[in-house]
Amino acid sequence: MINIDSSHIARCAQLAMLLEVSATPKPGNIDRDHNYTDTRFEHFLASAVGVYPVLEKAARSKSGVGALIREAVEESGQWQKGGNTHFGAFILLIPLVMAAGRCEDRTCLRTQIQKVVRETTVEDAVEFYRAFSAAKVKVKPVDDLSLGDAASFDKIKRQGLTLFNLMEISSSYDMIAEEWTNGFQKTFECAASIQNKIKKHGINDAVVLTFMELLSNYKDTFIQTKFDDKKAEEVSMRSKKILQKGDTDEIKDEIYAFDEQLLKEGINPGSTADIIIAGLFVSLLEGMRF
Amino acid sequence: MINIDSSHIARCAQLAMLLEVSATPKPGNIDRDHNYTDTRFEHFLASAVGVYPVLEKAARSKSGVGALIREAVEESGQWQKGGNTHFGAFILLIPLVMAAGRCEDRTCLRTQIQKVVRETTVEDAVEFYRAFSAAKVKVKPVDDLSLGDAASFDKIKRQGLTLFNLMEISSSYDMIAEEWTNGFQKTFECAASIQNKIKKHGINDAVVLTFMELLSNYKDTFIQTKFDDKKAEEVSMRSKKILQKGDTDEIKDEIYAFDEQLLKEGINPGSTADIIIAGLFVSLLEGMRF
Repeated sequence: MINIDSSHIARCAQLAMLLEVSATPKPGNIDRDHNYTDTRFEHFLASAVGVYPVLEKAARSKSGVGALIREAVEESGQWQKGGNTHFGAFILLIPLVMAAGRCEDRTCLRTQIQKVVRETTVEDAVEFYRAFSAAKVKVKPVDDLSLGDAASFDKIKRQGLTLFNLMEISSSYDMIAEEWTNGFQKTFECAASIQNKIKKHGINDAVVLTFMELLSNYKDTFIQTKFDDKKAEEVSMRSKKILQKGDTDEIKDEIYAFDEQLLKEGINPGSTADIIIAGLFVSLLEGMRF
Repeated sequence: MINIDSSHIARCAQLAMLLEVSATPKPGNIDRDHNYTDTRFEHFLASAVGVYPVLEKAARSKSGVGALIREAVEESGQWQKGGNTHFGAFILLIPLVMAAGRCEDRTCLRTQIQKVVRETTVEDAVEFYRAFSAAKVKVKPVDDLSLGDAASFDKIKRQGLTLFNLMEISSSYDMIAEEWTNGFQKTFECAASIQNKIKKHGINDAVVLTFMELLSNYKDTFIQTKFDDKKAEEVSMRSKKILQKGDTDEIKDEIYAFDEQLLKEGINPGSTADIIIAGLFVSLLEGMRF
């Protein structure tokens, strides 16, 4: 049974964001021991704190995914000056939090999350485009629709594209969009992996190992967008090779070295981190404690 | 002007707890890079997340300090298995959050915090003793009143002791109790110090340096209770000597060495950390961002 109190759900989402950014070493990404120049660990803490009321509102909402994603970006941004922190995470968390507000068990969550995303409207698509501008993210715009562009808003409305439709268009090349269209498959896979590992490895290493597994199995969208497909493939292959070398203690040094290399090259697997947050949220919602 | 929306106030308190536990190296205490065997960094994250609804309730409450402290201990404890995390911090934060709910500027906060603590009742004292049992803290019981003991409850009621009276009795040897009786002087001093340092040093080092300053100026109650007065005095002297040696960059290695030594000896200046949380809360409430 899942506790569907809206504050409980919002806190699970908040803690998921904090545990993800704290887990170290998470190759290439910001964590408790690694910062980028302008965006730092503390900016992620402040963002997770700031977004709370939007998460609680989402847990009580039956519709409005797009507006809630935009509000999450805006509210969290008011609490820190480090730029974009959790935009990708909110694209997954907001519908998950809304689905959780309707559910009392995991089977239900799997059904409801599909309903929430399929019920999105044209207005959700327009609001989502507004969220992009608010987040100032460097991403590939969907199809030939430019971000924050009045013509794109018109086109979305004229073609009657819902937010789910936009995700369908992007799903072939964007792992976050693909979550929307495939029933959050990687999210649930990630949740199962973390819960399997937590007893033996503790929360930090359960997250790190699951991150490495995801990275080895799926090319990271953020790397594909910032660099190219080849670079994302290389990163996945390197993760796979490290994981094949043995048990956690044996490969820890290799993970540290991998981390240093990716940080040096500015290669941050941001989309994989977003899925970790979604997976941690599902795990905490299901009662995982440590 | 201070934003007195209850969710805003609660988030300032939550972020204060997260920034305090993250700041590293904070000699002797748990931080993002240092854990104790049973209590870890992640337990503090979970505790700060879990307590949110109690903080928001406190921001809307005109009375009930004792019960709110007990609820804070209980609620935060349900989110983690690492034992006591923020009990001392809640003794300061709960009345501060309540005072903030009544105020729109700092001058008012200074006045209202004194009213909040002076208005406490015998029932608050009883509830506070219940909170002790819930937190399972090793502390010196007030006077000859034993914790969770039915006879003590009776004695408090018979003598008509309010929670403020209990703090008066303890204030000569307990720096947290002393905050209650002296208008939260160290808390405001700490807030001013962090705000003075943040621009030059960034949020992490502003906290670390303020922590060192507090430690050098005041003997830590937690050390006095766990060890003795002499040990607390030694720790303060050592902090003072390090600070006298020069600028942050020059003394960073000495602070790291000091941290390692205290951790090895199990000397954790927990009460100083509680005052840092209170000072960070006041700073964030006054609009400090980073």
